[in-house]
Amino acid sequence: MEVITAGSIVAPKGFLSGAVYCGIKTMKDSLDVGVIYSEYPAAGAALFTTNQIYAAPVKYSRNVARKGKVRAIVMNSGNANACTGEQGYKNTVEMARSAARCLKISEDEVLVASTGIIGRQLPMDKLIEGIHKATASMGNTCEHGNAMARAIMTTDTRQKDIAVRLKINNKDVTIGGITKGAGMIAPNMATMLCFLTTDISIPYILLNECLKKSVESSFNRITIDGHMSTNDTIAIMANGASGVSMTSQHADLEKFQEGLDFVAKYLAHAIVKDGEGATKFVQIDVVGARSRNDAARIARSIADSPLVKTALNGEDPNWGRIVSAAGYAGVGLDESKINLYINNILIFAKGMPTPCDLGVLSVSMKSRDIHIRLELGLSAYSDTVWTCDLSHEYVTINAEYHT
Amino acid sequence: MEVITAGSIVAPKGFLSGAVYCGIKTMKDSLDVGVIYSEYPAAGAALFTTNQIYAAPVKYSRNVARKGKVRAIVMNSGNANACTGEQGYKNTVEMARSAARCLKISEDEVLVASTGIIGRQLPMDKLIEGIHKATASMGNTCEHGNAMARAIMTTDTRQKDIAVRLKINNKDVTIGGITKGAGMIAPNMATMLCFLTTDISIPYILLNECLKKSVESSFNRITIDGHMSTNDTIAIMANGASGVSMTSQHADLEKFQEGLDFVAKYLAHAIVKDGEGATKFVQIDVVGARSRNDAARIARSIADSPLVKTALNGEDPNWGRIVSAAGYAGVGLDESKINLYINNILIFAKGMPTPCDLGVLSVSMKSRDIHIRLELGLSAYSDTVWTCDLSHEYVTINAEYHT
Repeated sequence: MEVITAGSIVAPKGFLSGAVYCGIKTMKDSLDVGVIYSEYPAAGAALFTTNQIYAAPVKYSRNVARKGKVRAIVMNSGNANACTGEQGYKNTVEMARSAARCLKISEDEVLVASTGIIGRQLPMDKLIEGIHKATASMGNTCEHGNAMARAIMTTDTRQKDIAVRLKINNKDVTIGGITKGAGMIAPNMATMLCFLTTDISIPYILLNECLKKSVESSFNRITIDGHMSTNDTIAIMANGASGVSMTSQHADLEKFQEGLDFVAKYLAHAIVKDGEGATKFVQIDVVGARSRNDAARIARSIADSPLVKTALNGEDPNWGRIVSAAGYAGVGLDESKINLYINNILIFAKGMPTPCDLGVLSVSMKSRDIHIRLELGLSAYSDTVWTCDLSHEYVTINAEYHT
Repeated sequence: MEVITAGSIVAPKGFLSGAVYCGIKTMKDSLDVGVIYSEYPAAGAALFTTNQIYAAPVKYSRNVARKGKVRAIVMNSGNANACTGEQGYKNTVEMARSAARCLKISEDEVLVASTGIIGRQLPMDKLIEGIHKATASMGNTCEHGNAMARAIMTTDTRQKDIAVRLKINNKDVTIGGITKGAGMIAPNMATMLCFLTTDISIPYILLNECLKKSVESSFNRITIDGHMSTNDTIAIMANGASGVSMTSQHADLEKFQEGLDFVAKYLAHAIVKDGEGATKFVQIDVVGARSRNDAARIARSIADSPLVKTALNGEDPNWGRIVSAAGYAGVGLDESKINLYINNILIFAKGMPTPCDLGVLSVSMKSRDIHIRLELGLSAYSDTVWTCDLSHEYVTINAEYHT
C-alpha cells in the first residue's frame, strides 16, 4: 500500500474537484463552496449524524444515498443550514439542482453537505453563483485537491487529507479522502465532514458495508467533547475508472477494506489531533471485556470525563480518575482484576496502585501521544477509542464567542 | 416550616456530634474526623454511589444500612479509603469498631464514610486516636454542628448545612443535614457526602422510601462534570426523640416528606453553587416529554455538554448548543415542535430561531442564576436538572494538580 499525500480527493482516476470563495465566510481569502465530481457514473454510500436535530442537507442526502448512486458532492462551509425549517430544505434542494445542471447529471445523484453557523438561511444568490464557478474551475491536479480540502474547513487549523494506492488484479486502485472536524463553528458546534473517492468498481451495497466497517473503527471511535453535531456526514463515491471490479467474493476484498480503513483512521486521527485546544493525542485501549460493546462504553466513559481530560492536559498520570470513570460506564466490573498501564507502565494492578518508576512515567506524560491501557480481566473482548485533552484553550475558544 | 440555619445536623433532639483534627489532612487548622451520634436507638437508611469501583466504607456501610438501624456515623476526610484492597476494608471495620466502643453501642449500628485522596491506606493510629477525641468532645451546640459540617469538607469553599422545623401532632419535628461536594480531591475526584438527622420516629422501610424520593429530585438531579465518585454516600438517622411517630398512613406524611425534600434540595443546590470553578447556577427544565425519564435524559445531556457549559461561562445564550445537545440524548424528538426559553425569553420556536430582545437576554445572562426551559411538545412529562458552568478555573483546579 502506497501512501499519497498530494491530491487526495482527486488522486483516484476520473474524479475532479473545484472550490471557490462565494461570500459565506467572512474571510475573503478562504474558500467556502466546493464540488467533487466523478466523470463516470458512480456507486455511492454515506453515513450521517444520529442527532435527532439534523440539518436540511442531512435530511436530503439520506434519501440520495439510499439509492446507491452518487456522482457528485456539493458542499459549503460557513453555514450549516441547520434549524432553518422548510426554507432551509428548499435551499438544499436548490443546491443539488444547481450542481446537477452545471454538471449535466441527475439531481438524484448529487449529495449535499453544509457546515458552519446554524439557524441562518443560506445566501442563495452568492451560493448558486459559487456553485457555477466551482464546477467551471474543476480539475484533478494537486492544487484542486488541496483547494477542496481547504474549502471544507471551518476553524480547523490545517487541512486533513490523504490517499492510498493498492495493487489489485495487477492494476492501481486508489482511495482518497478529505475531512474536517473539531473546529468551533460560531455560534454553535463542530461538525465532522468526510468525503472519500475511489476508482474501483463496486456494488453500492458492498460499498456501504465496507464504509460502515471502516467508520466503525475510526470516526465512531473518536471523541473530542462528546457533543454530537447536527450535520455529520461521511460519504464515498466509487466510479470504476481503475478498471478493477470488486465483489463480495473477490480475493482482495480484504486488501481494499484495509486501504479504506487506513484512510478513514488517518483522517479520524487527524480530527482528534486538530481538536479544539488539544495538546494531546490519547489512545485508550480497553481489553479483557465481556463484549466489544462493553469495552467501547468504558473507553468512551474514560475519554469523555472532564476530570481525565484535564489531568491529561496537566500531564498527570492520574489513575484514580481513569479507573473511576471506567467504574461508572454502566458495565459490571471486578475491581480486584483490573490493571492499568499508562504509556506502557503498570501503575495500578489488581485493584490497587502499584509501585512504578514515577520519574519515567512523569517524563513520558510530556509527549504529545499518550497511551492508556485498561485490562479488565473478565473475558477476551477489547476496543480502542481516541481522544484529546481538555485545555484552557478549549474553554477560551468556546466561552469567549458571543452570539 | 421554619428554616434553621444554625446547628443543622444536631438541631434535631437527641443528636450529638464531635469533630477534631487527627492528622490526615495536611492543613493543621482543619478538621478531618467526626462522629454523629444519636442518644437513642435510631432507624437508618442510606444510598450509595452506583460506581462499580467503590470504596471500602461504601462496601461496609451498604451492609449496615440493609439492617435499618443506624445510631452513629463515623467519618474522615482527606483520605477516601478507595482502591485500598483488603487492608482498606479491615481499616473501615476498625473505624466502626472503634466508634462503637467509644459510644458503647453495637458496631452493627455504625455507618462509616470517607472522602479524600484514593489509593492510600488510612493512617489508623492517628485516626483511632481522632475517633476517641471526637466522641469525647461531642455536644449539640451550634459550634458542634458547624464543626461537623466543616469536618466533612475537602476542597469545598464553604460549609453546607441546613435544618427545618415542622409541626406534626402539635409537636416540633426537626430535620437537619450537612453535605460536601464538588471539591477536587487530590489526586482524584470529588465525592458527595450527605448526612441527615431527624427526631421523628419512623419505620426504617418508610424512612428509606422517603429518602429515595427526596434524593431522586435533588442529589440525583445535579451534575457538575458527569464524573461519578467511588465514595458517594447519603445517610439519614431517625431517633424518635421528638415524641412524634410517622407511619405510611399518617395524615402528615407528606408534610414530613416536604421537609426532607426541602433539606435535600437545599443541600444539593449548595453543592452545585460551590462546584469547581462554578460561576453560574443553572436550572434546566425539560417539559412536554413522553416520560419523566426522557425529560431527565435530555436535561442531563444538556447539563453535561462541555459546549453548553462553556457558553454559559461566557454568558452567551447559545441556543444551538442547547438544542443539539438535546438531540443526541437518545430520545426521539420532533424538531418542528421544539421551543426554547432562556431566562424566560423565547429564543427558539417550532424548530427555528425566533426574533427576541437580545439586549435584555444578554443582560440577563450576567446574573448568577440561569434558567433554561426546553419544551418538546410531545406529551405531558417533565423533569429538572441543576448544573454549573465550565470555567478556566475548573481546568486550572483539575489540570494543575500533580500526583
